[in-house]
Amino acid sequence: MATTLIQGGTVVSATGRALVDVLVDGERIVALLEPGSELLGSDVAATADRVVDATGKYVIPGGIDAHTHMELPFGGTEASDTFETGTRAAAWGGTTSIIDFAVQTYGQRIEDGLAKWHEKAAGNCAIDYGFHQIVGDVNEASLEAMKKLPDEGITSFKMFMAYPGVFYSDDGQILKAMQVSRDTGMLTMMHAENGPAIDVLAAQLVEQGKTDPFYHGIARAWEMEEEATHRAIMLAKLTGAPLYVVHVSAKQAVAQLAGARDTGQNVFGETCPQYLYLSLEEQLGAESTQWGHFEGAKWVCSTPLRSREERHQDAMWQALRTNDLQMVSTDHCPFCMKDQKELGLGDFRKIPNGIGSIEHRMDLMYQGVVTGEITLERWVELTSTTPARMFGLYGKKGVIQPGADADLVVYDPNGHTSIGFPEDAAGHPTGKTHHMNMDHSAWEGFEIDGHVDVVMSRGKVVVEGGAYLGAKGDGRYLKRGLSQYLI
Amino acid sequence: MATTLIQGGTVVSATGRALVDVLVDGERIVALLEPGSELLGSDVAATADRVVDATGKYVIPGGIDAHTHMELPFGGTEASDTFETGTRAAAWGGTTSIIDFAVQTYGQRIEDGLAKWHEKAAGNCAIDYGFHQIVGDVNEASLEAMKKLPDEGITSFKMFMAYPGVFYSDDGQILKAMQVSRDTGMLTMMHAENGPAIDVLAAQLVEQGKTDPFYHGIARAWEMEEEATHRAIMLAKLTGAPLYVVHVSAKQAVAQLAGARDTGQNVFGETCPQYLYLSLEEQLGAESTQWGHFEGAKWVCSTPLRSREERHQDAMWQALRTNDLQMVSTDHCPFCMKDQKELGLGDFRKIPNGIGSIEHRMDLMYQGVVTGEITLERWVELTSTTPARMFGLYGKKGVIQPGADADLVVYDPNGHTSIGFPEDAAGHPTGKTHHMNMDHSAWEGFEIDGHVDVVMSRGKVVVEGGAYLGAKGDGRYLKRGLSQYLI
Amino acid sequence: MATTLIQGGTVVSATGRALVDVLVDGERIVALLEPGSELLGSDVAATADRVVDATGKYVIPGGIDAHTHMELPFGGTEASDTFETGTRAAAWGGTTSIIDFAVQTYGQRIEDGLAKWHEKAAGNCAIDYGFHQIVGDVNEASLEAMKKLPDEGITSFKMFMAYPGVFYSDDGQILKAMQVSRDTGMLTMMHAENGPAIDVLAAQLVEQGKTDPFYHGIARAWEMEEEATHRAIMLAKLTGAPLYVVHVSAKQAVAQLAGARDTGQNVFGETCPQYLYLSLEEQLGAESTQWGHFEGAKWVCSTPLRSREERHQDAMWQALRTNDLQMVSTDHCPFCMKDQKELGLGDFRKIPNGIGSIEHRMDLMYQGVVTGEITLERWVELTSTTPARMFGLYGKKGVIQPGADADLVVYDPNGHTSIGFPEDAAGHPTGKTHHMNMDHSAWEGFEIDGHVDVVMSRGKVVVEGGAYLGAKGDGRYLKRGLSQYLI
Amino acid sequence: MATTLIQGGTVVSATGRALVDVLVDGERIVALLEPGSELLGSDVAATADRVVDATGKYVIPGGIDAHTHMELPFGGTEASDTFETGTRAAAWGGTTSIIDFAVQTYGQRIEDGLAKWHEKAAGNCAIDYGFHQIVGDVNEASLEAMKKLPDEGITSFKMFMAYPGVFYSDDGQILKAMQVSRDTGMLTMMHAENGPAIDVLAAQLVEQGKTDPFYHGIARAWEMEEEATHRAIMLAKLTGAPLYVVHVSAKQAVAQLAGARDTGQNVFGETCPQYLYLSLEEQLGAESTQWGHFEGAKWVCSTPLRSREERHQDAMWQALRTNDLQMVSTDHCPFCMKDQKELGLGDFRKIPNGIGSIEHRMDLMYQGVVTGEITLERWVELTSTTPARMFGLYGKKGVIQPGADADLVVYDPNGHTSIGFPEDAAGHPTGKTHHMNMDHSAWEGFEIDGHVDVVMSRGKVVVEGGAYLGAKGDGRYLKRGLSQYLI
Repeated sequence: MATTLIQGGTVVSATGRALVDVLVDGERIVALLEPGSELLGSDVAATADRVVDATGKYVIPGGIDAHTHMELPFGGTEASDTFETGTRAAAWGGTTSIIDFAVQTYGQRIEDGLAKWHEKAAGNCAIDYGFHQIVGDVNEASLEAMKKLPDEGITSFKMFMAYPGVFYSDDGQILKAMQVSRDTGMLTMMHAENGPAIDVLAAQLVEQGKTDPFYHGIARAWEMEEEATHRAIMLAKLTGAPLYVVHVSAKQAVAQLAGARDTGQNVFGETCPQYLYLSLEEQLGAESTQWGHFEGAKWVCSTPLRSREERHQDAMWQALRTNDLQMVSTDHCPFCMKDQKELGLGDFRKIPNGIGSIEHRMDLMYQGVVTGEITLERWVELTSTTPARMFGLYGKKGVIQPGADADLVVYDPNGHTSIGFPEDAAGHPTGKTHHMNMDHSAWEGFEIDGHVDVVMSRGKVVVEGGAYLGAKGDGRYLKRGLSQYLI
Repeated sequence: MATTLIQGGTVVSATGRALVDVLVDGERIVALLEPGSELLGSDVAATADRVVDATGKYVIPGGIDAHTHMELPFGGTEASDTFETGTRAAAWGGTTSIIDFAVQTYGQRIEDGLAKWHEKAAGNCAIDYGFHQIVGDVNEASLEAMKKLPDEGITSFKMFMAYPGVFYSDDGQILKAMQVSRDTGMLTMMHAENGPAIDVLAAQLVEQGKTDPFYHGIARAWEMEEEATHRAIMLAKLTGAPLYVVHVSAKQAVAQLAGARDTGQNVFGETCPQYLYLSLEEQLGAESTQWGHFEGAKWVCSTPLRSREERHQDAMWQALRTNDLQMVSTDHCPFCMKDQKELGLGDFRKIPNGIGSIEHRMDLMYQGVVTGEITLERWVELTSTTPARMFGLYGKKGVIQPGADADLVVYDPNGHTSIGFPEDAAGHPTGKTHHMNMDHSAWEGFEIDGHVDVVMSRGKVVVEGGAYLGAKGDGRYLKRGLSQYLI
Repeated sequence: MATTLIQGGTVVSATGRALVDVLVDGERIVALLEPGSELLGSDVAATADRVVDATGKYVIPGGIDAHTHMELPFGGTEASDTFETGTRAAAWGGTTSIIDFAVQTYGQRIEDGLAKWHEKAAGNCAIDYGFHQIVGDVNEASLEAMKKLPDEGITSFKMFMAYPGVFYSDDGQILKAMQVSRDTGMLTMMHAENGPAIDVLAAQLVEQGKTDPFYHGIARAWEMEEEATHRAIMLAKLTGAPLYVVHVSAKQAVAQLAGARDTGQNVFGETCPQYLYLSLEEQLGAESTQWGHFEGAKWVCSTPLRSREERHQDAMWQALRTNDLQMVSTDHCPFCMKDQKELGLGDFRKIPNGIGSIEHRMDLMYQGVVTGEITLERWVELTSTTPARMFGLYGKKGVIQPGADADLVVYDPNGHTSIGFPEDAAGHPTGKTHHMNMDHSAWEGFEIDGHVDVVMSRGKVVVEGGAYLGAKGDGRYLKRGLSQYLI
Repeated sequence: MATTLIQGGTVVSATGRALVDVLVDGERIVALLEPGSELLGSDVAATADRVVDATGKYVIPGGIDAHTHMELPFGGTEASDTFETGTRAAAWGGTTSIIDFAVQTYGQRIEDGLAKWHEKAAGNCAIDYGFHQIVGDVNEASLEAMKKLPDEGITSFKMFMAYPGVFYSDDGQILKAMQVSRDTGMLTMMHAENGPAIDVLAAQLVEQGKTDPFYHGIARAWEMEEEATHRAIMLAKLTGAPLYVVHVSAKQAVAQLAGARDTGQNVFGETCPQYLYLSLEEQLGAESTQWGHFEGAKWVCSTPLRSREERHQDAMWQALRTNDLQMVSTDHCPFCMKDQKELGLGDFRKIPNGIGSIEHRMDLMYQGVVTGEITLERWVELTSTTPARMFGLYGKKGVIQPGADADLVVYDPNGHTSIGFPEDAAGHPTGKTHHMNMDHSAWEGFEIDGHVDVVMSRGKVVVEGGAYLGAKGDGRYLKRGLSQYLI
């Protein structure tokens, strides 16, 4: 096997940083070395097959995006990124593992839903991938099937308190599934919004002619996220299940999580870049020549963008610092405006819910380091180490140590990244800067004071010098263990 | 310089564990290696000057005890461990760094107090040592002197809300000192008990003839710890100072810290082994032939032991899990019963306050791993990694990585440690098992399901095979940087 | 019309007590007089048609029980008290007004449900009665019908988060009904328990053979009361509806109410005597020759009795003192053991839910005065003044002042009341002491240090000298106004 | 004795309102009568010596201002209202009782301090007056003297956590005094601000040249009110003393009180009109020809005015609604600008602290009814009924019932009151509208949609038809009983 030495960089971990050289042999890291050490009887750099110069740059464990939806059928269409396009975009952005969601729909067997997702992903991914299981129909058969998922390397499942008639489970069903969670140690993941109430509000708004994308956020009031979060916590408390709340966006929901955590309950939460940077007010003001006020459809996602005046965004950053939220995932679920988002022209309820961010997560979170919201170490912890520990990948992933998979990113704090579809000085479009299969960017105009220079996935350099060097099928399925956060 | 390979062990960090060999060259770690790797062109084990077999054992960063009081003058006597005896005992117990407290007494210059402590410690320590500064007299001169402490490697100072007439500062003085803390980034450490109120309660108890050691704990009611903790938090909020509350023992004080942390305030707290394991009820019941009910004097410390019925101990363990408390220090402040503790016969107020635990901290906390209170990783985090990050030692200390000081402990989970002055089967005393200069043990009869096998301090093996191999003066002064927890 | 002077008593109000004579003319109070005053130019006592001597006794406004269920069809049977028997028992116990619940069942029109209840009550009641409306089927027609209820004197409606398939409303339905509440000022009353989750737990217990009455309380875990209470609060917050939570029994539910009230939300709560005095542990231990362990069925009610060890009862008393709960009602819903409760032999789910207490509420709450849990004034406030203010009866009811209905009770603090089916010294049954239509007493053996001596309903003495002097049909329908607690 | 009938008015109590005539005989109320009742054998109106027509007006119990400082020596001067001028102004404003503060200064005997205040007040007051005792020097003698105060009708004492060197008590002293409070049932009243810290901040501001009145509010930061409030609560909890916090102005202090009350602790709080209506921002912006920026001195009081942007004022109103604050007093402590406030020109610390409002409290609080902040009933409760119950005057004062003192106010909701020194259309000064001995008004320009028409003090009409009909010495000393709020 070929050896690579990543030399001269600052290795950043969840707890600190140090000037350390990293030696990779084949797919794994085999040594961390003091730079310039002559101790080992030979010049390691000289004998390595390849040397990557990371001088002045950060060397970090590859990003892990624990919440993605490639090819997800939703709202009469399908998420626009395939496992191929989506994971390639991930690699471009410094993410080297994803955990996507296999779906059991109502009436379907879990085994069949899972098999279908294996089929979609197998041989198509640019980076390693695992699955959570969406449980869309809790019944005796599915409860039995769930118990066998850990043997398949699937140690977490997701339920929905929203979307009645689609993914929704009632509280009795949630209770039963959580009992499985308690018994097996699987994490219960929860979309915590009160769907039955929200659907009434949404219908009333549409009846009143309030059909613009912005009303999506009005209907999905923070009170209904806070409520569902509390309910999920109490059901978890009652059953003893560990709980992980996805895409938290309301500060009051964070307060519920913080309160439960203060009492020692095993409750966790993630937020997403959109809840850190974007706001309901901006969605309200969005307008374009092409789409008019429907421009706001680009940011229709659930949970929705929240009010900046109410300072939800500040609260999310703070929760990331206080560890009341532990991770940042993307909830990557891209839809094009053309033919997809536009299904909701005249009725915001029909806009497919989702934002595409998989390629930008590492950059967007690094910008939080630049602006002083989080430390460099916390950046690594939020985007890689904790996801690995939370979802049973740590050791292989999420850490730079001998024996770990050589999933590595060389990140240049002096580089720069522009996002979106910029125009040149003459006003001509220069083409999109991203590699996701989307006809727009939810992040148009964002500028990042850093750059993903080199990305290595299990020892193979897949991005370097602005070129993609990987191939479809590079990525392998990740059998995951139980969460390390359960005590 | 000589090289040592620690081979076959499981290296445990704050985030995980892995089978990794550690190569030491001179005083530093120079490489972490995949076991058995032939990659580096030579058999490292063969070339190392020395190989330590850690098979089946844990390799952890040496313990850091951030709260000790060697030779402290207190209550008309002096803590019974010198820097020599105390640090040697520390080494026996797997602790390779301490941070002791230099004392400025009332009327004294800070510079002079500090110089005196340097004098006491220099050339006498078995392991590396740093200082916090006790500020016992806030005035214009001391406020100026404080600002220069970071240049001396002293980046934290301690104040007392207790002990009027001794170390006590009033709220105006605390405010001024905290302004220095805010301006310099030094951590304000606080002994948070309402001294003026406690002293009234104590005097009233003595007047009522309630003079036994147990009443020490009655006088120092949890309400007065909670109160002072809240007050310190509000003064810190007002000034913007980072705050670190020492020896937290009341669950209500933890609630205050947790509440402040939830709002993003830079507030931290430590607890000590005594608050995790020992209780007021046991102190009440303590009795011996030699000392009668005065036996309880062994556990007179401030803050005091708390009620087990009120579940303070459970709350402390929980807070360690939830990170509402971040560290475990000892507050090592030993006094012998003979001639020292007995000063308080007939008046508990005259018992010198303090318990000696420096030798047992790593063991006692490991026992928490055995009983399932904390994870193995959290053990390392609480006893070494966080102390290093909190007090500006990380990189050199608190982590196993190339470039770090080779402060390493090989801990045997299959070993066993008995604490105290046990008797043999025939009932004859076998002598003390500890190396602290104390005529009794506060931990008599504690049994630990693990054992400190090998201790390496800056590359030198100081404990091995049940023998102390170090020497007085091995330890060097540690100039500390600012805390890494401030954002 | 005849005049009556109640002379020599201590009139107790919600704010204080005073020696005041009360002059009644016909159905109304017409004057409050300083005792012995000659001012009015005549000796009032001499001219009154009748003088009631209340010397040494309390004169209080007649009790208002705002939560009763006469003749309620439930669980395949019907509550054993008719409007005739139940209201007569109320009068015996010093209660002179009830507010019962008219029921709209699923598929029925509200108008028809209400008409039926009017029919049941009209001409049958011993005391005045009003109605709340149970809304068991939220749809467009019922939402419209609700808006007209205030014109009928019905200013509050009740919904159920429990009992799926019977009274249950989902969160979307609750939201719609609460919008009516906000728009009309009607109070939303809520049975706050998470029915879908509880029903799963109950079914699992029965499957495990845990069929005894005690398991009713296990299935209806406090977590599910707390959860539903929080959910109701958030739906009320979202809509702006005033909320009144019925039969609160869990201390954690009280904490939710207290938290909401602290923020100024219009949220109220009642508890019932059973949650103040009885416990789950006692239900567990209950056993009799006749019924064996099924004896516990006597105390099957929802919400269930709570654990004494967890101190829920203490918390309810405290909440009554702190005004986090504002009222005490009975939730009077009696069932006989024979033919009714015994429907649940072998399956606790089939035990009709309910306890009969209407006759004992005033006594049981007075006992709280005796034991120091509440003040005399608070007794009057909790049982009469607040119910009147809360439910739009104040002025006519709930206060002793000129112009008010002469609903008055002379209560003797030196009297005594034994409850239940006591035996004489020879062990022979002496017959029941209550007048409710029940074959047992949930309050067997309770002794009260006080006695209802005289009860006057709209000027007519209906209980005096241990005799019932009233008649079926004395009671009139009460058209209620809006709550006075809304601002 | 002469009789008076107050006829045709709406009597308002803490719980409701009703059309009731009030018959007064001599100093007392002797009857409440249904209007127009012929029952009593005679036309009461015809036989009464005097009839007051209250048609269309409110009849309320006279106001009780439980926090005033007549003739208080403070800051080198003395409050500008004597007992004569201050109580006369009170009467003008519908207040018929005050509770002033007798002062024990440092080094003085309590008995002597109290005697002095009796001397100041006796024979000079327009209305009835009682005393709280300020304890400015806790020592063995004063602790003994305190125990005898209830026999003198003084059932509450006040301590200061502010003003070191003047009234300040340290926490040990407070603890001792609170033990007396617990043992006797006396209320501990607390000025809750952290004086030692505030004095440091104030000195630093002056050093920086920030000497304008506005900086008074900056120095007295809300954090230091919150802190002291919490500390007082914990000392009260430790000792079991009932606690009453005076002049609460910070919303965070209210949160502390609310939290303690939720746990059942006997903790109470008052606010003052200035904290409901005035703000720090307005003080900052204040400017006049005569005084320039020193104009702000008019509103220098402690606790200080708070920020409107931070919504403290809204929080105070809310707390009055939620009963987290129970009363509104004035803290009437007037100083003229000339010769008094101007002592602080160039150093805000030297401005005598205090605002004069005794004449306007009933009006200002009524305006809260007009604007919908509180109900009419709550107005009466906050200004009269609760003060009476809190401070042991109820029965005689605070309620309209037979046997009570005839302290009555006829308030006209169709009247109007302008406050301050208005000018006529031509811009000429029309003279002051108030009767307090002040050369300015803190309430300049306030307009009230209501008017105090008639004021009766113990049966004597003292204000009517815009004329003062009372006399110096009308008021008697009130021996007070214990608070009715202690259980």
